[in-house]
Amino acid sequence: MAYMVNDSYDLPTINYVNCYILDGYSVAGPKERMGKLGEHYDLTVDNDKFGEDTFEKGERKMFATALQGAINKSGVSDSDINAIIGGDLLNQIVSTSFATRGYPIPYLGLYNACGTFVESLVVGAMLVDNYMQHVACVSGSHFSTAERQYRFPLELGVFRSPHSQWTATGAGCTILSNHSAHPCARITKATIGRVVDYGIKDINNMGAAMAPAACDTLLAHLNNTSTKPDDYDLIMTGDLGKLGGYIFGDLTSKKGVVLGDNYMDCGASMYYPEQRTYMGGSGAACSALVFNSMILNQLHNNEIKKMLLIGTGALMSPTTSFQGDSIPSIAHCIQVEYEEELWN
Amino acid sequence: MAYMVNDSYDLPTINYVNCYILDGYSVAGPKERMGKLGEHYDLTVDNDKFGEDTFEKGERKMFATALQGAINKSGVSDSDINAIIGGDLLNQIVSTSFATRGYPIPYLGLYNACGTFVESLVVGAMLVDNYMQHVACVSGSHFSTAERQYRFPLELGVFRSPHSQWTATGAGCTILSNHSAHPCARITKATIGRVVDYGIKDINNMGAAMAPAACDTLLAHLNNTSTKPDDYDLIMTGDLGKLGGYIFGDLTSKKGVVLGDNYMDCGASMYYPEQRTYMGGSGAACSALVFNSMILNQLHNNEIKKMLLIGTGALMSPTTSFQGDSIPSIAHCIQVEYEEELWN
Repeated sequence: MAYMVNDSYDLPTINYVNCYILDGYSVAGPKERMGKLGEHYDLTVDNDKFGEDTFEKGERKMFATALQGAINKSGVSDSDINAIIGGDLLNQIVSTSFATRGYPIPYLGLYNACGTFVESLVVGAMLVDNYMQHVACVSGSHFSTAERQYRFPLELGVFRSPHSQWTATGAGCTILSNHSAHPCARITKATIGRVVDYGIKDINNMGAAMAPAACDTLLAHLNNTSTKPDDYDLIMTGDLGKLGGYIFGDLTSKKGVVLGDNYMDCGASMYYPEQRTYMGGSGAACSALVFNSMILNQLHNNEIKKMLLIGTGALMSPTTSFQGDSIPSIAHCIQVEYEEELWN
Repeated sequence: MAYMVNDSYDLPTINYVNCYILDGYSVAGPKERMGKLGEHYDLTVDNDKFGEDTFEKGERKMFATALQGAINKSGVSDSDINAIIGGDLLNQIVSTSFATRGYPIPYLGLYNACGTFVESLVVGAMLVDNYMQHVACVSGSHFSTAERQYRFPLELGVFRSPHSQWTATGAGCTILSNHSAHPCARITKATIGRVVDYGIKDINNMGAAMAPAACDTLLAHLNNTSTKPDDYDLIMTGDLGKLGGYIFGDLTSKKGVVLGDNYMDCGASMYYPEQRTYMGGSGAACSALVFNSMILNQLHNNEIKKMLLIGTGALMSPTTSFQGDSIPSIAHCIQVEYEEELWN
């Protein structure tokens, strides 16, 4: 049974008045370092255990490192941060919760699978827009912890399907503020996605499951803001991968919205073909890493003035797949703008 | 290693101007029906599979039933709801995500373990206070799904430790609005908790792990609002259980705050001793069920005018426990007030 989009319901776009992106920090794994965007990350690690005795503790340390790195880079101190918002792919989002344990700062844990990083920006922006001064938004993922939790023991060396993606290893953190003394990018709008499920059951083809959700949210955002794709310097999805990205383009075209060269998918852009990630990267780290490195630099260098970041998430669990369920998906969209004129 | 509270950091309390509780709905399992509060729930089911072929699908159906029940009882229609906010205890919070699949409504998934219901009210209140008209906040848990995910196969019939609690079965949903034509309770304040970890590793004594977090958040809330326990008709924690409740009272006493007869714990109040739940109920259903039944009725009957609801969560996973970690915990507090005079 598929749960198609019901167009009779609106998907509203909310507006933020005061949400400034002070800075971001990215910690990536060794495979990501060797990938196309390796030079952009703030820190890359030699070994994906990151000096810890388990992959899970290594992932947790990446979260803590991204959090502290973003705080330092933003020129604020730990005690300036009024809340930490985030989540990850591990059961009970333990990477985020355990990383946050070291900070005596209010914490809200989130889970919308690989859409969690953008979800954290949506919720964090609400907090600084109305109630708080500074908020840290953190998310990420780890190949070795995700693989053994969701799929197979690493030691089994299972062959990968040609439509599969590779869970990216790393964490990214963004510091949002209700004010900024210097020119910086702002989050101006958000469209919170709904659960869309076209009946896809192939967990090796999550791009196909998530593409309809990304299409639904993008079309609502464009419609609500009376804009078209050309109005943005960049439209970026989280982890649809190569095949999912093609399906996404097909779906939007059928609705009369043609994506141009300004469209990219974080997961599809992270690795070289010879790295054998097939359809590219997946995982909450994709959008968290790419946004908090190359993209934030391009925004702050005035190379991007207006963009959409669409976080995509596949909401199944191994249990639901074993019980025969299809893959419900979601996509949240935020609009990020940099207007240097505002500060002149 | 314990992560004690660092008193040099503030835990701020945020204020909501327009957050009205239209109504709530509760769906409880057969054991809960036979418990002390059985008569208060809107719907109780005969069998905890709720007519489905797996416990997980039964849990999901309870979530969907609570959601639809709360919408109907609040006198709004599905299309009036601008967002669904919630989460549950299953890996990848699949109960909430799959229940939400039937609604073409924006969705934010959350996870702070058994504190998720109060977390959903904290985030939902931000949405109606600033951006949306109506929001549904939903959470719950299920004994049979939680037991086999977190502990042991049900068929094993493992002996329970005397300090253990019983995961409550059910789901509760609250509809928040930015306006109300009739007198109703309001959420006026929230104190978002931080992760506290006193080094407890006994997963059969989660009340002990969570009590310090509840103490930390309550003291911050009282301090920020210049109030004392006697200023509230009710101070209610989610699922500390009997032992956790005693520890909570001990900890607050040592800080000079003595809890009186106006303190209750949802988990500790749900079952009769002969139901052999030992320290009482646990799980996200505890606060969701009790608040959305007896307590909301008492608020709307003017028997409670001012109360605190403190959602408590233990943030470990089976993996972190197997890897030797202690149990980080969190508690979020909301203040609920009913002032009939406001509408006169």
